[in-house]
Amino acid sequence: MPTDFLVGVDLGGTKIFTVLADQSAEILSEVRLDTESDRGMNVVLGNVYRSIDKVMVDAGVASAQMAAIGVGAPGPLDTGTGVIHEAPNLGWRDVPLGRLLTERYSVPVLLDNDANLAALGEKRYGAGRDAGDLVYITVSTGVGAGIIINNKIHHGHSDAAGEIGHISVDPDGPECGCGSIGCLETLASGTALARQAKELVASGSGQGILERAGGAIDNISARTIGEAAANGDAEAVRLIRQAGTCLGFAIANLVNLLNPSLIVIGGGVARIGPILFDAIEVEVRHRTMPASRKGLRIVPAALGDRSGVMGAIALAIEHLEYFPTPGVY
Amino acid sequence: MPTDFLVGVDLGGTKIFTVLADQSAEILSEVRLDTESDRGMNVVLGNVYRSIDKVMVDAGVASAQMAAIGVGAPGPLDTGTGVIHEAPNLGWRDVPLGRLLTERYSVPVLLDNDANLAALGEKRYGAGRDAGDLVYITVSTGVGAGIIINNKIHHGHSDAAGEIGHISVDPDGPECGCGSIGCLETLASGTALARQAKELVASGSGQGILERAGGAIDNISARTIGEAAANGDAEAVRLIRQAGTCLGFAIANLVNLLNPSLIVIGGGVARIGPILFDAIEVEVRHRTMPASRKGLRIVPAALGDRSGVMGAIALAIEHLEYFPTPGVY
Repeated sequence: MPTDFLVGVDLGGTKIFTVLADQSAEILSEVRLDTESDRGMNVVLGNVYRSIDKVMVDAGVASAQMAAIGVGAPGPLDTGTGVIHEAPNLGWRDVPLGRLLTERYSVPVLLDNDANLAALGEKRYGAGRDAGDLVYITVSTGVGAGIIINNKIHHGHSDAAGEIGHISVDPDGPECGCGSIGCLETLASGTALARQAKELVASGSGQGILERAGGAIDNISARTIGEAAANGDAEAVRLIRQAGTCLGFAIANLVNLLNPSLIVIGGGVARIGPILFDAIEVEVRHRTMPASRKGLRIVPAALGDRSGVMGAIALAIEHLEYFPTPGVY
Repeated sequence: MPTDFLVGVDLGGTKIFTVLADQSAEILSEVRLDTESDRGMNVVLGNVYRSIDKVMVDAGVASAQMAAIGVGAPGPLDTGTGVIHEAPNLGWRDVPLGRLLTERYSVPVLLDNDANLAALGEKRYGAGRDAGDLVYITVSTGVGAGIIINNKIHHGHSDAAGEIGHISVDPDGPECGCGSIGCLETLASGTALARQAKELVASGSGQGILERAGGAIDNISARTIGEAAANGDAEAVRLIRQAGTCLGFAIANLVNLLNPSLIVIGGGVARIGPILFDAIEVEVRHRTMPASRKGLRIVPAALGDRSGVMGAIALAIEHLEYFPTPGVY
């Protein structure tokens, strides 16, 4: 009986995305469940268990055949102890997810930040297979990054690296939940885009955007703004370009500091496509030195919404490469 | 006859600082010469040779006893080929310094960016001996950084990492030589400080600063501004705080991205001391998340103006550790 199956879990604020893969990272089954974070920690935990049980049943793999579980979760978390310290999106605080999963499934559990794992997923199986260093940026409800240096996730001193969403883009910009002002996240996240469009509509303009949202202001989202822009709505295009400029500003800082060869952009907002990416490129070109952006490519995530879960699989596979004979957990 | 002596060269726009050390990085002799960059490439090169010859003669070490030379130089340069591509401060372009020194001294020559080597010097022998990751920032004529991750210099994809001086601090700020606007270097370098003070004096104020410069506006420098501030001159204090705020803004970006445990600040402007460092600390605290600045220390360089040359020695020693038996060069 082969015992080399891996489970990858991408635990998000709205969805739990879980896959079962073999050691060559071939996906055998996958399942998406609602996180139901509003129903409390135990319900969320139950949903995580249910998603793992389901991918195993679907693939006909028994518990004893599972070799490791990789989990991507929102931070701040401790990759060493497997504890999620604080995840407002999940309503969690100091949850020892690693230990809980190890006790239930008797396998090693590797936990890391969701953006870090998306970076690792794109590095191993996606847009970054040929790159040395890589920065993955997710532009979604929030904005975060995972940094790969010398083929390894750069965690930083206290597992907090990659907080590109809190780079100051506008020294006099909107207040951010983090205590600072003008953070990238307040200007270029999906949340920020929707807020800006709603303000536009509330002030009497933005009718093309409103129409795309079915006439209901509450339905306006980064996606409907993207659709309006694709339809040629000038206000939607302007909002997206503005967000792209802010992203480009922060990315330029990163390029000047780290001189990476590849930046991969994922998350829902990235799916808006060329209008966004073109604005990013223009600003990065404007605010970096030629030597720093030499050979730089800025590309969309190749794995779409699978970047994170494939990173979780990569993490589990890496663990087995270092510890090939699983002990008792 | 022992053959384990190392030469370190810190090749700057105004001074060449060269030391001879043994394999435990004990300095046996040192010499400082004027670079004389205005006299052309060959004169500068002659001065480099002269400085190396002199440290050997001073220490009574023969050419055959030298094991390797480490050189820190302004970039952009190629650490692999030892070519300095462009060094406006030296009036150099595509100078194969590594090959020239190897031909003359018949030893391996290791070349790296001056800020990178200052970072390495502080890591091995200075403020960073106990730190894992470290960022060294030099605030002098310009502003640059060297980044140490996992004990190694982070060079980036094209040897251009660490350009913190070109992080955008003020989206509408002064034009920078790099083509962008509002770069840190245009706001918080020694050059920028002197320019701001001279503008103040030209507009009729800044008398305390002018006095400190002996009444001659051309004598105003970061140093005289620092002295005026130490004497309690309010305008000098304000200029320095302003520079500290700009530095803190860029450092906060870096902290959010990389989450280092230690930032070491060197260069002439850093010698201004607490007025500058306090302003940096306030801004970093304001613009970083608690998780990102957890355990972070921001300290002055422990090696003073020896950070770079000790990094050059460290580079030479590292090379010998990997290639213990020097071949023929």
